[in-house]
Amino acid sequence: MKVNGQRLLDNIARYAEIGKAGKIGVERIALSEEDKQARDLLKDQMLDLGLSIHIDQLGNMIGLRKGKKDLKPVAFGSHLDTVYAGGRYDGALGVLAGLELVHTLNDYGIETEYPLALVNFTNEEGVRFAPDMMGSHVYSGQANLEEILASQAYDDPKDTIGSRLKAIGYNGHLEPGAIDFDSFIELHIEQGPVLENEGIDIGVVEMVQGIYWTRYTVNGEANHAGTTPNPYRKDAGYASAEITKFIGDFSRREQSAVLTTVGSIAYIPNTINIIPGQVVFTLDLRSTQKAALEQAQIEIDSFIDKVVEKSGLEVLRESMVRFPPVHFPDEMTDLVENATNNLGLRSKRMPSGAGHDAQMMNHCCPSTMIFIPSVRGISHNVEEFSKDTDVVNGANVLLNTVLSRSETVS
Amino acid sequence: MKVNGQRLLDNIARYAEIGKAGKIGVERIALSEEDKQARDLLKDQMLDLGLSIHIDQLGNMIGLRKGKKDLKPVAFGSHLDTVYAGGRYDGALGVLAGLELVHTLNDYGIETEYPLALVNFTNEEGVRFAPDMMGSHVYSGQANLEEILASQAYDDPKDTIGSRLKAIGYNGHLEPGAIDFDSFIELHIEQGPVLENEGIDIGVVEMVQGIYWTRYTVNGEANHAGTTPNPYRKDAGYASAEITKFIGDFSRREQSAVLTTVGSIAYIPNTINIIPGQVVFTLDLRSTQKAALEQAQIEIDSFIDKVVEKSGLEVLRESMVRFPPVHFPDEMTDLVENATNNLGLRSKRMPSGAGHDAQMMNHCCPSTMIFIPSVRGISHNVEEFSKDTDVVNGANVLLNTVLSRSETVS
Repeated sequence: MKVNGQRLLDNIARYAEIGKAGKIGVERIALSEEDKQARDLLKDQMLDLGLSIHIDQLGNMIGLRKGKKDLKPVAFGSHLDTVYAGGRYDGALGVLAGLELVHTLNDYGIETEYPLALVNFTNEEGVRFAPDMMGSHVYSGQANLEEILASQAYDDPKDTIGSRLKAIGYNGHLEPGAIDFDSFIELHIEQGPVLENEGIDIGVVEMVQGIYWTRYTVNGEANHAGTTPNPYRKDAGYASAEITKFIGDFSRREQSAVLTTVGSIAYIPNTINIIPGQVVFTLDLRSTQKAALEQAQIEIDSFIDKVVEKSGLEVLRESMVRFPPVHFPDEMTDLVENATNNLGLRSKRMPSGAGHDAQMMNHCCPSTMIFIPSVRGISHNVEEFSKDTDVVNGANVLLNTVLSRSETVS
Repeated sequence: MKVNGQRLLDNIARYAEIGKAGKIGVERIALSEEDKQARDLLKDQMLDLGLSIHIDQLGNMIGLRKGKKDLKPVAFGSHLDTVYAGGRYDGALGVLAGLELVHTLNDYGIETEYPLALVNFTNEEGVRFAPDMMGSHVYSGQANLEEILASQAYDDPKDTIGSRLKAIGYNGHLEPGAIDFDSFIELHIEQGPVLENEGIDIGVVEMVQGIYWTRYTVNGEANHAGTTPNPYRKDAGYASAEITKFIGDFSRREQSAVLTTVGSIAYIPNTINIIPGQVVFTLDLRSTQKAALEQAQIEIDSFIDKVVEKSGLEVLRESMVRFPPVHFPDEMTDLVENATNNLGLRSKRMPSGAGHDAQMMNHCCPSTMIFIPSVRGISHNVEEFSKDTDVVNGANVLLNTVLSRSETVS
C-alpha cells in the first residue's frame, strides 16, 4: 500500500501558503496568528478524516483513530511551527505525511489493530519562547507545565506561552501525556547533506546526538587601538579568536567524536578603533557519545581557562543546555529499516544531528525517526527543499512502519 | 610666566557640564545641540578676551589676537566635540588651555610679536559624520568642502554636515584655510598608558602613526550546527577566528613595528546553532613607519587569502582609511622640548597612536603636539581622567611654546 503522493504534495503546498516567506519558504512562529491558521486547518482536516481531536493544556494536538483492539495508540507526527524565515518541510512534513497516512487508510477501508494518534507538538523550534521541543518535553513528563506556561517571549515579556495559547484558542483541557502512546514515529527532513551526497533514499535514525550549549563572557578592558601598546592590552577579542580557533580545530582532529560550532559572538563596544573590552560567544557541542561530549567540554574549558589566565582576562560560563545522546530502541529502528527495504529503497542507519520531538518522546514510549534527503543540506532557511520523490518515499516508509507497529498487514 | 591653573580647571569643569555623561564624562557629538552650547560659550569667552571671531564654511572657529607685527598667526587649539560617552579632556583641553593662554597674556598685558589664533575644529571625532578630523582635513586643503558638507549622519541620512551647521548657526562665510597660519600647536591627552607608567610629565609628539583601516567580509555558507559534518562546512566564523588570531599574533612578534586590532565583528546570522554564513570584521593597523604598514597589510592580506582559499570561502576587502605616518618638524618639537625643560618637567619624545587635527594641519603649516598623561591610559570613555597637575603643566608648556614661536620673551 502506498500513500497518494500528489495529494500529500498539494497539502504541503497548501500549508506553505500560511506564513509564506520567500518563494518556497515559511515563517510560522509557534503560537502566532499563522500557527493558529495552520492548526485550524489541521483540525478541520483531521475532523474530515474522522479523527477525534484532543488538545492538551500546552496546545499539543492529537487526532485519534480507533483500532480493532483497545490498546495504546501508535503515534506519529511532528510540529507545524517554523523558525524565522524557515522552510516548508521542517516539521510540517511529519504532520502532513501522518495526515496523508490516515487518509490512505480511509481510502483503503483499513482498520488497524492498534489505535493511531496523529500529533502536532507545540513550539518545537523554540525561536520565540524557550525552550525548544517544548510540547514533547512536557508531554513526555520531563518538564513542569506551569513553568513552561509562564515562559516569556524574547521580544515581548507580556506574551507568555499561557497568554498566547488563550489568544489563539489552543489552551485545551487534557493533561499533557494523559494519552499514553504505544510508540512514536517521526518523519523529518535530514537537515544535513549526508543522504543526498551518498545517494541514500531514507535515513534510519538510530539516535539523536547529545547537545551541550554554553555561553562564555570574556572580560578584558576596552582601550584605544592606536594608543595602547600590546603589553598594556587586555584584548577580549584576540583571546576569543584563539579560543574560537581551538574550538574549531578540536572537532577537526582525526577521529574526533564531537561537532563544535561557535555560531554567535558579540564584541563590546564593537568599534573599529577600540580594543574589545568584552566578548560574549556561544559553544554548540554535539556528539553521539556522552563520554566524548563530557571530555570535549572539559578540554575546551581548560583551554579557555589557560588563554584567559595568560592574557589577564576573566571568563564567565553559563551552561544553557545539557542534553545527553538519546538512543532509539532496535525494535523501532528495525521496523523503519524493514519498511524501507520492502519498498525497494536504499537506507542508512544514522544519528540525528538536530534535536527533535522524537528524542523527548523516547522517554515515555519507544520512538524513532525517518529521515529524507535535504537538497544541499539546507534547512532553517527559506531555501530548504526536498525532492517530491523523497517526500513521497518518506510518507510511504512512515505508512508501512506504522502498519507494522500496529500489527496490521497491508 | 604661568597660566592661572585653577581658572583653567574651573573652565574645563564648566564645559564638562555641557553634555555631562556619568560622573565626570561628556557626550557632546559634533554639531549637536550640546556642541552648539559649547561653541556659544567659547564665542562669548573669546569675545570677552578681546579676540576677533571668524567662523568658516565648515564651522571651524578661529579667535584672532593681534600681534605687534603683521605676520601669519601662531595657531593653537583642538576640538570641543566628543565621542559617545566620552571624556572631558579629549579635545576640550587643547581649546580651553588655548583660551587660558590668551587670558594669561591679557592679565600680564603682553602683546606677542606674531598674532595668535585659537582654533576649535569641527567634528574631529567623526562618530556621527564621516570622516573624522574633518575640520582640519578641509582647513589644510586636503578634502573637498562640498563633498564634506554633504556627509550624512550614520543614524539619519536627512542630517548632513551642511544642514546641521545651519541648524546650530555655525555655517560661516570664511573659506576654510583662508587665514594662513604660521604654525599649529595642539595640547592633548595621551589617551594611552605610556607617560603615566614611565612617570613622565610631558610627551613631545614627534609624529603621528600611520593608520590603515580595512573592512573584510568573509562569505561562507550558513548551515545547521548539528547536521552538517565538518567536511561539508563553509564556516566563515572559524576562518575569521584563524585570521583574527593571526592579526593579533602579527603585532606581538618580537620587534614588530605595527599595532594591530580587530575591534569589530559581526556574524550572520549570529545564532548559537547555525554555522556563521558571513562574517564582517575590521582591521585597524598602525605604525610609525610607512614601509612597515604596507608590508604588514600585504602579509595579512596574503594570510587571509590563504585561509579563505583552503576553506572554500570568499573574501571582500574595503579599504576605508590609508593615512601615512606624519612627522612633525624638528623646529616645532624642539620648541616643545625646550619649554618643558625650562619648566623643570620631565619630557619624552614619542609618537601619537591616535589621529589628531595637528597631523592634518602639518600639511599646511609646521605643527606639533603636546601630550599629558592619561590615568590608566583610558580615553573615549566617561572615566577618562588626567590629574589637575598634569592639565596645568600641559597648559604651561603650551603657553611657553607659543611664546617662543611667536618670538615673544616672557
